[in-house]
Amino acid sequence: MRTRPLKVALLGCGVVGSEVARIMTTHADDLTARIGAPVELAGVAVRRPSKVRAGIDPALVTTDATALVKRGDIDVVVEVIGGIEPARTLITTAFEHGASVVSANKALIAQDGAALHATAEQHGRDLYYEAAVAGAIPLIRPLRESLAGDKVNRVLGIVNGTTNFILDKMDSTGAGYQEALDEATALGYAEADPTADVEGFDAAAKAAILAGIAFHTRVRLDDVYREGMADVTAADFASAKRMGCTIKLLAICERAADGGSVTARVHPAMIPLSHPLASVREAYNAVFVEAEAAGQLMFYGPGAGGAPTASAVLGDLVAVCRNKLGEATGPGDSAYTQLPVSPMGEVVTRYHISLDVADKPGVLAQVATVFAEHGVSIDTVRQTGKDGEASLVVVTHRAPDAALSGTVEALRRLDTVRGVASIMRVEGE
Amino acid sequence: MRTRPLKVALLGCGVVGSEVARIMTTHADDLTARIGAPVELAGVAVRRPSKVRAGIDPALVTTDATALVKRGDIDVVVEVIGGIEPARTLITTAFEHGASVVSANKALIAQDGAALHATAEQHGRDLYYEAAVAGAIPLIRPLRESLAGDKVNRVLGIVNGTTNFILDKMDSTGAGYQEALDEATALGYAEADPTADVEGFDAAAKAAILAGIAFHTRVRLDDVYREGMADVTAADFASAKRMGCTIKLLAICERAADGGSVTARVHPAMIPLSHPLASVREAYNAVFVEAEAAGQLMFYGPGAGGAPTASAVLGDLVAVCRNKLGEATGPGDSAYTQLPVSPMGEVVTRYHISLDVADKPGVLAQVATVFAEHGVSIDTVRQTGKDGEASLVVVTHRAPDAALSGTVEALRRLDTVRGVASIMRVEGE
Repeated sequence: MRTRPLKVALLGCGVVGSEVARIMTTHADDLTARIGAPVELAGVAVRRPSKVRAGIDPALVTTDATALVKRGDIDVVVEVIGGIEPARTLITTAFEHGASVVSANKALIAQDGAALHATAEQHGRDLYYEAAVAGAIPLIRPLRESLAGDKVNRVLGIVNGTTNFILDKMDSTGAGYQEALDEATALGYAEADPTADVEGFDAAAKAAILAGIAFHTRVRLDDVYREGMADVTAADFASAKRMGCTIKLLAICERAADGGSVTARVHPAMIPLSHPLASVREAYNAVFVEAEAAGQLMFYGPGAGGAPTASAVLGDLVAVCRNKLGEATGPGDSAYTQLPVSPMGEVVTRYHISLDVADKPGVLAQVATVFAEHGVSIDTVRQTGKDGEASLVVVTHRAPDAALSGTVEALRRLDTVRGVASIMRVEGE
Repeated sequence: MRTRPLKVALLGCGVVGSEVARIMTTHADDLTARIGAPVELAGVAVRRPSKVRAGIDPALVTTDATALVKRGDIDVVVEVIGGIEPARTLITTAFEHGASVVSANKALIAQDGAALHATAEQHGRDLYYEAAVAGAIPLIRPLRESLAGDKVNRVLGIVNGTTNFILDKMDSTGAGYQEALDEATALGYAEADPTADVEGFDAAAKAAILAGIAFHTRVRLDDVYREGMADVTAADFASAKRMGCTIKLLAICERAADGGSVTARVHPAMIPLSHPLASVREAYNAVFVEAEAAGQLMFYGPGAGGAPTASAVLGDLVAVCRNKLGEATGPGDSAYTQLPVSPMGEVVTRYHISLDVADKPGVLAQVATVFAEHGVSIDTVRQTGKDGEASLVVVTHRAPDAALSGTVEALRRLDTVRGVASIMRVEGE
């Protein structure tokens, strides 16, 4: 075994970074045995050096992250700052100065993964980021390596713990959105400004990364269709229950039936209670993968938190260190299929539409005609009404999203339709 | 990209082997892109050469497996024969003659993994066997690589599809064991002789492999405690339901609380319905992992079948080919912790015991005294009775298995205890 240690620079020492540093110290012997050489924390770049950091030698702490990644003796840079800059420049500089990189930065990888991979490859370095999607759940490595001999056709993921916590509360207690969000905030599952989570931005970044890896192509953040879950109501859950479903915020990446394109989207959707994703509770994450030969797989676990994210970072750190010792690099970017990303209108799925309508004869016939005119075939209709008002719940067969949008637009123009109460896609069947 | 193809020899061309050969042909372009060089099927060793094999060039087929692995120009040998010999000798010969090996052979890896790893390492070859445990589910790679920076404390697995199908049927239909087994046989989920599955031999081999990888130590097949599930009754399921539980055949690998030893066992157990493993239906497999930093993870998917197993084999094939091209080897055997395996008597868990007792005053006091004398603390007791006979269901707190065994032996000696109807461990709480 080599005795000269591999040197690790840590960029960021917040919830995740401090946990990475702690485990590197407490589990040093295990890491040494698994890597084949000791690893040494050679520097920690932080914004506020005055903050006391238990277990970290103050002599290692610096505010000059750039100087740290430029030192030239660093083997691996662990980036847990988050955000686009300065993370992007620091990672690029690290590659140029001899280091491989382990990152937990979903926003950056989703936006600039291609360029960063290219720089890594140009310099013969590794770029690993298991922690960027679904925290501790091994996902990037299984998709990229275990399924490397298979063909993934669909990925359905619950990849945001905050929104799953809120939807699970609404499902189990009958609470409304605001009440469930308040509870999530009080318990620390939602941030003071929950926009990134509830509007699906966080999930969209993960969907872009997952789609790229699953289909060996390039999916940019802008390619991902995104709808938040703030409009989901207790009535939607009641309606889902009647159908034997629940509602989850899903990241959905699909290969088109003809194999010639892919789609990626994030939105709330009804899924059958019998689907493995339906029983994913609280803030847990899970990703359901359909592959041609493997069939249906699911990966489940905590999607966030200091220790779980640190676990993923350290798994990558061990792999990158082993590669360094073997003077090799791991499997890099794989985007050879160059499949185009189709717009949302071409996505084909089923829909659950709730309409408030006038309670008089002929309304159902009018509504059914509109669906037929747009080529959207109806599976079931449920009609309930009293006092001149009625509600109509229509569940369709599979149809393109554009056809459904056209249908809804036309329905809104009918005098007898007072309003479209909700439109929800039905997945996982 | 290199144009000289990597040469693959296939040993065995049954359900899995023929699927491997098929995918190598139909997905040749994808494999080439992912590996960085083409792969070529260079030979197929079979027992019955006369059998027609669709899509395989008859010129590649041979009955002389030894000559095939000795050819010297083979880069990777894929062993899907199963069993101990001739698989073991062929794999060893392959290592000696320049090839790395991908195997799906759980029995061989469980029995001789250490020796085979040593031979592979001595010759600078890879030995990969993702397909040996839980078919298509990526498990070996996540445990060995993704969690390489973490400390796994427990693995609970449903790793045998046949028994899960039977237990799921019993749970959902109230059927008895024989009726459910007959249905599994009729549907092809159980073999004509189901012994290896229902007696837990298959699961025990997987438990040995999982425990070794999870704890970085050596667990031999003989170290695994094993109980089959043929004695599980409809009454057990009814009792489980009253406790909010179901019954699964589990492979359980645990690190002792003091960290100084490990245990591995296979037996039917009650688990709470809220546990993620409880909702694993039909012939699906799932492995639940508890790690110090990552927390609770679960990996779910088809545990057997030609295509799913081929998916795992091909994932390994891609990795081994990439290693060959990079003149490297992947992470090999990791057994550095050398933790001893404790006997079943030292396992600490909870128990559900059904007793047939005389329905007269003082019986409960007698029974409770026996538990107390053996240091087994009672959690709940439920007593039901009529016509002079009664049944007593005792659920205990956590206690060593040896203490429970002693308790049961003493209970059998009581005049008032007519019989011990069932003893089942309660896990996953």
